Amino acid sequence: MTGPTAAETSADGAFVRQPYRFRGRFSRDGSTAFPAEAGRYRLYVSLACPWAHRAIIVRNLLGLQNVISMAVVDPVRDERGWALRDGSGHERDGVCGFDFLSEAYLRSDASYEGRYTVPCIWDTRTERLVTNNFPDITIDFETEFVDFHAPQAPELYPAHLKSEIDALNDVLYRDVNDGVYKAGFATSQAKYEEAVHALFARLDDLDARLASSRYLVGGQLTESDIRLFTTLVRFDAVYAIHFKCSVRRLVDYEHLWAYARDLYQRPGFQETVNFDHIKRHYYLTHEKLNPSRLVPVGPAVNWNAPHRREALP
Amino acid sequence: MTGPTAAETSADGAFVRQPYRFRGRFSRDGSTAFPAEAGRYRLYVSLACPWAHRAIIVRNLLGLQNVISMAVVDPVRDERGWALRDGSGHERDGVCGFDFLSEAYLRSDASYEGRYTVPCIWDTRTERLVTNNFPDITIDFETEFVDFHAPQAPELYPAHLKSEIDALNDVLYRDVNDGVYKAGFATSQAKYEEAVHALFARLDDLDARLASSRYLVGGQLTESDIRLFTTLVRFDAVYAIHFKCSVRRLVDYEHLWAYARDLYQRPGFQETVNFDHIKRHYYLTHEKLNPSRLVPVGPAVNWNAPHRREALP
Repeated sequence: MTGPTAAETSADGAFVRQPYRFRGRFSRDGSTAFPAEAGRYRLYVSLACPWAHRAIIVRNLLGLQNVISMAVVDPVRDERGWALRDGSGHERDGVCGFDFLSEAYLRSDASYEGRYTVPCIWDTRTERLVTNNFPDITIDFETEFVDFHAPQAPELYPAHLKSEIDALNDVLYRDVNDGVYKAGFATSQAKYEEAVHALFARLDDLDARLASSRYLVGGQLTESDIRLFTTLVRFDAVYAIHFKCSVRRLVDYEHLWAYARDLYQRPGFQETVNFDHIKRHYYLTHEKLNPSRLVPVGPAVNWNAPHRREALP
Repeated sequence: MTGPTAAETSADGAFVRQPYRFRGRFSRDGSTAFPAEAGRYRLYVSLACPWAHRAIIVRNLLGLQNVISMAVVDPVRDERGWALRDGSGHERDGVCGFDFLSEAYLRSDASYEGRYTVPCIWDTRTERLVTNNFPDITIDFETEFVDFHAPQAPELYPAHLKSEIDALNDVLYRDVNDGVYKAGFATSQAKYEEAVHALFARLDDLDARLASSRYLVGGQLTESDIRLFTTLVRFDAVYAIHFKCSVRRLVDYEHLWAYARDLYQRPGFQETVNFDHIKRHYYLTHEKLNPSRLVPVGPAVNWNAPHRREALP
């Protein structure tokens, strides 16, 4: 896309994300059509996309790299959608032979008319998409692929924290993860401002919350931290400029910024962050927002600066 | 304009500002066609425009408000150019009766085909434009209107500092004042990056220079400070977002940011800064850069925070 489609814009100028069509679920016990198996499923991601980025990080943290294969699309998307022509040295799609991600969608449902989105997961056995409903993907990695987790893998979605994580994820999604898109893709000043005010009120709250605790929930790294991280890592390079989320930058938030660096600097995170893909994707893809197709230099930010959060509970 | 015109863009994608057509000079001694007189000339400005802003500040600092009258155009410009329809409470053009600034240009030269720019000065006696060559305007206010200066008016362009001021103004113009436009209006990534690198290298230099001196030249407020100020005051609200001058923001520069606040907080400056006009002008006028016409909320910045520069030489 070069901006929101007609279906994604309400009459009053709000960006309204549409439901995701493919909603298969994996199962540890084989109770669904897609039992958790090693070597059967293939994850399609863009390194630019915050929704896909969640899946990449969780896959790394849980040690599922050899269980679920992964293909990286080219960061620049045109009217044909995501393409598997990446020349960055990442794995090409030698498995399924797709040139465009649309092929996976249309082979799964020839009548499909929605967006071709990442992340999505292809079943090499039945040759159809399992899911493009991104909130399910990380949860299923955490709960249904548990027999394949690495021995030291963290528990990102423990049962005793589930309700707290789910509740926080809802507001993170509404105000932050999707909030930046609601700001950037608004077509009316009123809807833009509504999204921006909700976003920064939430960031202010989160900054206060993280002043006294290292993680968002339960004193440990969870799914909520990963969901927040993938928006924060894009914030100053993209959302503050391209989506006009410019009341404050991430680096203006004492605790949020240190928290984001704390996550970035640990194994499983930093190696998944590709600022080149992130910047080229947003600035070169959304022609309606950036017709000049100039990609900003900077910002000059040190993600490896000490975060000093080790002592927090 | 909605972006640079064809004449303003070189084959390699650089923004090239065109010469200004009207170049009359004022004279204290009557040696030019436009002798310095009270009540004869009318200054047309936009509160959004950094070039016009210089003239507004200098007029205030020198106490020329009752000597040279001033009309403020509407901040939002369409294909007809600047319009005198401002509803903000500023003085309307009750003097010359223009609805559009183009009338002043075309009555001065019916064959004129350039931009209708601010600042410009109209001679009510001969009914023609004296000048739209902005670098001359403040210099003439300082040197040719000297008989009309207020008793305590600062010497902004003293003879013994002239060569130093002129030399600094040249690099300020090239790298900073016009540098932000060269970045934002570039049509190639290479020319954008060239402008951005020159801009931030110069800002880095200026930050170091201002670490040990309160002003740029000669230990006193001069024309150079005013020229730098009108770009700095727009930097984070506009240039860092709209023109992608986003390597660092003004507030990231310890000394430049304190220096800008030091100027802002004194009489003659703050009352000339209108962030509403500034933001609405840039974001609503350049459709090629901002087709969505969304005007950013923020940035949340405190221009009245203490600057602590009183002790500097």
